[in-house]
Amino acid sequence: MKFLRYGPRGNERPGLLDAEGTIRDLSGLIGDLGGEVLGNLGRFADLDISTLPVVEGDPRIGACVAGTRKFMGIGLNYADHAAESGMAVPEEPVLFMKATSAICGPDDPIIIPRGSEKTDWEVELGVVIGKRAKYVSEEAALDHVAGYCVINDLSERAFQIERGGQWVKGKSCDNFGPIGPWLVTPDEAGDPQDLGLWLCVNGERVQDGSTRTMVFGVAHLISYLSRFMTLEPGDIISTGTPPGVGLGMTPPRYLKPGDRVELGVDGLGIQRQVCVADI
Amino acid sequence: MKFLRYGPRGNERPGLLDAEGTIRDLSGLIGDLGGEVLGNLGRFADLDISTLPVVEGDPRIGACVAGTRKFMGIGLNYADHAAESGMAVPEEPVLFMKATSAICGPDDPIIIPRGSEKTDWEVELGVVIGKRAKYVSEEAALDHVAGYCVINDLSERAFQIERGGQWVKGKSCDNFGPIGPWLVTPDEAGDPQDLGLWLCVNGERVQDGSTRTMVFGVAHLISYLSRFMTLEPGDIISTGTPPGVGLGMTPPRYLKPGDRVELGVDGLGIQRQVCVADI
Repeated sequence: MKFLRYGPRGNERPGLLDAEGTIRDLSGLIGDLGGEVLGNLGRFADLDISTLPVVEGDPRIGACVAGTRKFMGIGLNYADHAAESGMAVPEEPVLFMKATSAICGPDDPIIIPRGSEKTDWEVELGVVIGKRAKYVSEEAALDHVAGYCVINDLSERAFQIERGGQWVKGKSCDNFGPIGPWLVTPDEAGDPQDLGLWLCVNGERVQDGSTRTMVFGVAHLISYLSRFMTLEPGDIISTGTPPGVGLGMTPPRYLKPGDRVELGVDGLGIQRQVCVADI
Repeated sequence: MKFLRYGPRGNERPGLLDAEGTIRDLSGLIGDLGGEVLGNLGRFADLDISTLPVVEGDPRIGACVAGTRKFMGIGLNYADHAAESGMAVPEEPVLFMKATSAICGPDDPIIIPRGSEKTDWEVELGVVIGKRAKYVSEEAALDHVAGYCVINDLSERAFQIERGGQWVKGKSCDNFGPIGPWLVTPDEAGDPQDLGLWLCVNGERVQDGSTRTMVFGVAHLISYLSRFMTLEPGDIISTGTPPGVGLGMTPPRYLKPGDRVELGVDGLGIQRQVCVADI
């Protein structure tokens, strides 16, 4: 199943996508797509979707998860991306945080922060936690997943690397976390370690990879992170990006107002963003 | 005024402390001490506190802020602490994140994570955001503060420094963020750059400093962070620790089950914690 949230920012309603690609409203059945609801999405499997109200028009799509309290990223999780970034492949997962205030809808504009000259893209597989996880084994880890989604892990490289220490400063600007369009349940998403993912800038394909080449797979990441903190329903793990980011180009290439970005992960939908200045 | 939250974890109710040190219940007036409520605490200034119900007994005290979505820390923000950590004084604020799942009450146990040998303490002045802040000037920054509180920025030094990259891994373990007991409004807290702060381990005073010696003061931190992301009501900035952490001792000294930690900031109350193993 493909769950989503639609409507104006801050007032999204839950929905799902039917087999014809029509949005059906779920707000008669659940308050929102967040918290404990995410631990039991399977209960909708027997639902007769045709009984749900059709959503008319072409509404804005919001982030496919509500109320996220931890937005985690994994750094350098594709060996060839580590190489293009001039960094070593890590011996264990590199965790960083993105501010939850960066979360936005999949087609919302990319806001180039004031003073930014190095805003960069990163297509990633997102993992949404459905059930609380602490000290979980790798074998049991995927039982804690509500679903998967597309994430653009936008990154301001000067803020991230040149401004004193931790990466979070360059990972957290407003709208630096487009999430969705859909939260796709594990049964429908298939093997999370066999998904193609790609990103285009102004129609030119710059990233083209597969989750097959991740250094640390999804089950390992969940198990690993659950040793350091409790993972809660609605928490998101953005699992790293394959090669082809602007930082790795010669010369480096960064986003500017007017640029169009399009990205997707097989079976999880497509995001389309236009870059704007933060005026 | 001193606001607080009391009751079992996850079911705290809002309250305030009257002049006699008695807790008065506020749940008839506000749902909780979070979100937009924090932007208008001044409306309680004219309240006749004696009309509020007295809370009987000796309830658990929870974190003094509800629904925090960004729990930010500032690294190396006291020059002498940077020196004891063997690190340079930063040229601009070093931001890191702590997971919001680490937040707990001021007297909840310190849980030593499995596999930890280097759990360390850090007394800090906490700043709670009351009003949305983006690109705010240093002059206007303090208008965005709801109040101040005591924070113990607990840190597992091996997880933080020796386990691959970013600090968040050692800053985010469950109960690594005791916050409170009170959210003290700015009029009552006084000058945030003139507060003594201290921490004792098993009765021995190991930290003893003043916010006078911060490298970057509160107004600068708010203004600076608001350039990189929107600060939202309920967001917390833990502003760094003075010297005297276990990492800086010769030999280093870390917490073990049974240790008692007591810490405070002038006028903001005292936290008392006992260390337990994570079994």
